[in-house]
Amino acid sequence: MSAEVICVGTELLLGDIINANAQFLGQQLARLGIPHYHQSVVGDNPERLKQVVEIASTRSPILIFTGGLGPTPDDLTTETIAEFFDTPLVERPELLRDISEKFAKRGRQMTLNNRKQALMPEGADILYNPAGSASGMIWQPRPNLTILTFPGVPSEMQQMWRETAVPYLKRQGWGKQIVHSRLLKFWGIGESALAEKVASFFELSNPTVAPYGSKGEVRLRVSAKAEDEAAAVELISPIEQQLCQIAGQDYFGADSDTLASVVGHLLQNSKETLSVAESCTGGGLGEMLTSVAGSSEYFSGGIIAYENRIKVSLLGVSPENLNQLGAVSSAVAQQMALGVKQRLETSWGLSITGIAGPSGGTETKPVGLVYVGIADPDGTAESREFHLGQKRQRAAIQQIGACHALDKLRRKLLVGK
Amino acid sequence: MSAEVICVGTELLLGDIINANAQFLGQQLARLGIPHYHQSVVGDNPERLKQVVEIASTRSPILIFTGGLGPTPDDLTTETIAEFFDTPLVERPELLRDISEKFAKRGRQMTLNNRKQALMPEGADILYNPAGSASGMIWQPRPNLTILTFPGVPSEMQQMWRETAVPYLKRQGWGKQIVHSRLLKFWGIGESALAEKVASFFELSNPTVAPYGSKGEVRLRVSAKAEDEAAAVELISPIEQQLCQIAGQDYFGADSDTLASVVGHLLQNSKETLSVAESCTGGGLGEMLTSVAGSSEYFSGGIIAYENRIKVSLLGVSPENLNQLGAVSSAVAQQMALGVKQRLETSWGLSITGIAGPSGGTETKPVGLVYVGIADPDGTAESREFHLGQKRQRAAIQQIGACHALDKLRRKLLVGK
Repeated sequence: MSAEVICVGTELLLGDIINANAQFLGQQLARLGIPHYHQSVVGDNPERLKQVVEIASTRSPILIFTGGLGPTPDDLTTETIAEFFDTPLVERPELLRDISEKFAKRGRQMTLNNRKQALMPEGADILYNPAGSASGMIWQPRPNLTILTFPGVPSEMQQMWRETAVPYLKRQGWGKQIVHSRLLKFWGIGESALAEKVASFFELSNPTVAPYGSKGEVRLRVSAKAEDEAAAVELISPIEQQLCQIAGQDYFGADSDTLASVVGHLLQNSKETLSVAESCTGGGLGEMLTSVAGSSEYFSGGIIAYENRIKVSLLGVSPENLNQLGAVSSAVAQQMALGVKQRLETSWGLSITGIAGPSGGTETKPVGLVYVGIADPDGTAESREFHLGQKRQRAAIQQIGACHALDKLRRKLLVGK
Repeated sequence: MSAEVICVGTELLLGDIINANAQFLGQQLARLGIPHYHQSVVGDNPERLKQVVEIASTRSPILIFTGGLGPTPDDLTTETIAEFFDTPLVERPELLRDISEKFAKRGRQMTLNNRKQALMPEGADILYNPAGSASGMIWQPRPNLTILTFPGVPSEMQQMWRETAVPYLKRQGWGKQIVHSRLLKFWGIGESALAEKVASFFELSNPTVAPYGSKGEVRLRVSAKAEDEAAAVELISPIEQQLCQIAGQDYFGADSDTLASVVGHLLQNSKETLSVAESCTGGGLGEMLTSVAGSSEYFSGGIIAYENRIKVSLLGVSPENLNQLGAVSSAVAQQMALGVKQRLETSWGLSITGIAGPSGGTETKPVGLVYVGIADPDGTAESREFHLGQKRQRAAIQQIGACHALDKLRRKLLVGK
């Protein structure tokens, strides 16, 4: 039983919004073990939508629609599908009640337009929208063909999918085998270098191993097909272990782990605290650290020393070094890390200084040159130089630079563990 | 002459990646004035791809493919299209040379797999890939049908599109009318409130006006169809002026403007400087400000006072106020703003303190409560309270809170202008 995704909306064709619904449904169908071979996007045009329904209904037994359930005249999905299958629309009193109650709760009056949203093809089951007025349906217009419709608003669509569609699809027994994945994450090794190290794993068939690279972070997705999640995990675990062993410290975490969350765990375990001194990232390093809930347990704060005089006045950087070596130098990075550690009285100090561009680069100090400084609990400081390239955008240099800083701290925290 | 987009890749169906290529091509086709009614996604399967080509070639005279041009065995786009049109593949010596030169430049040896990438259907023109080994083609397999192929890697696809496909499409005269848009941006007004104020504009047909809302920022897209960009701008400008006048100070900028870049311009104009004191955003406010190239001209730096003792030791916040009123209070926000302004010796000081959650909220101070403080050049401090809601995620509260801080400063900087 394969499913086909049909997204309706001119705004998708115009590129006004990205098709996040198609990605979400793709992931969900894979997880449920329901094969999925086709996706289509079509505008708010009943004739073209009918043609798409005709094509899809001959090749896929499950059709999943998103979009076109709203109250405006160009929301046509329900009526067009009904018309294609020669089925009259019927106003559902229970749906009308649901919609008017939602409006009442918000202190608003339901409009005539919204009344349209209570119309469903004869024989269709309502797929209630817990948040908005655009409910969908589950309908078998003919044997061996099931249609599900969802609104285009991602949050509403996802809630309806999880709460009502998934239980329905499982009850039908359509997903025989589920696909479960682990996403292993690496920093400090390139995609091709890691791929070479683990090349033999790419030949596996269950689980499969596939590499992805994005902004300096390299990922391996290990996916297993099995009857349930526990069985899939059993297939994945030994492969995961081997991959992590091969990668050594370049492996930093899995799934929702980030460099900031991993650093946070290590600091929490050792009951140590951290402060940051930032120049070229302007606060981005602190932002990454505090994106982790509970980071107040180990992150004390920091100093954004964007201007050089702040590096002197608040971090105690040597004005001579600034003059002679420049703000983007190993010595200044070390002094920044030590300065913030001492000033904020934390176990560790982490600093970053660099040239994010697009201007400010020179022959000897090009755009993308970044120094990360680290001061350890004993008060010893060291630094590392990174060349992040002159072709990268400012935002990428700032983001990758901050990740390198976190990764450097992570490796220091792992020493002796 | 309408165009259809066909994206090839099982990774799209699995939801491993989002279909950014479809969005990009949608935007580009709209800009070129080439109608675009269908998008399809199909996996790396030659039979199904052939069926998609069959359907698309009967309804659209221009087919644009992305993906499946790589060197691996599951990259099948070129050969499948050639097979569908019964055309033999021919090895192109010029393409073989191009590929081997690219490998030589990187100091690597071309593999046998890559040799496949030099094969093109007889009669096709090569669409060179300036960055990678996956070149595409422009091919007319039969009268009134043009096929363009691109690799799936977005950066390579986009470069090839801009440098070679766009000039080709324009030469054919296929885009009669272009669509040009201005994106107007608003802060401090809800989507529905703005929509009510400008409701009559939604009835316009050329230019059209459509609202979008995302994370606190409201946008109006004004799109005009015309012969060229200059003519479109002439249609858009009077409407834009009216919309901005109606919105007043809630309008902050257009297109690539951000609250941070607008604040930056205002500071630059008045030759003033800024520092920030951040608690709940942990550096995110500074990060937004320094995401703007050239921000070192007005942004001096800041203090991330995540822990309360840092608020006291570095910002001079009153320990009594902290104890009695709490860190998330109007008084503390004002003292933080004043403290950082004085310490960093800047014209303005901007602060933010709040409860980003998910934990830490109480009955009187719920998650989402945020205070923004501002200290002006005269040393007068004030603050404003925001309730960003308990349902929002931590990241959204941090991001929207930082935007409110920037917006508050923007409005202060506009006074008397």
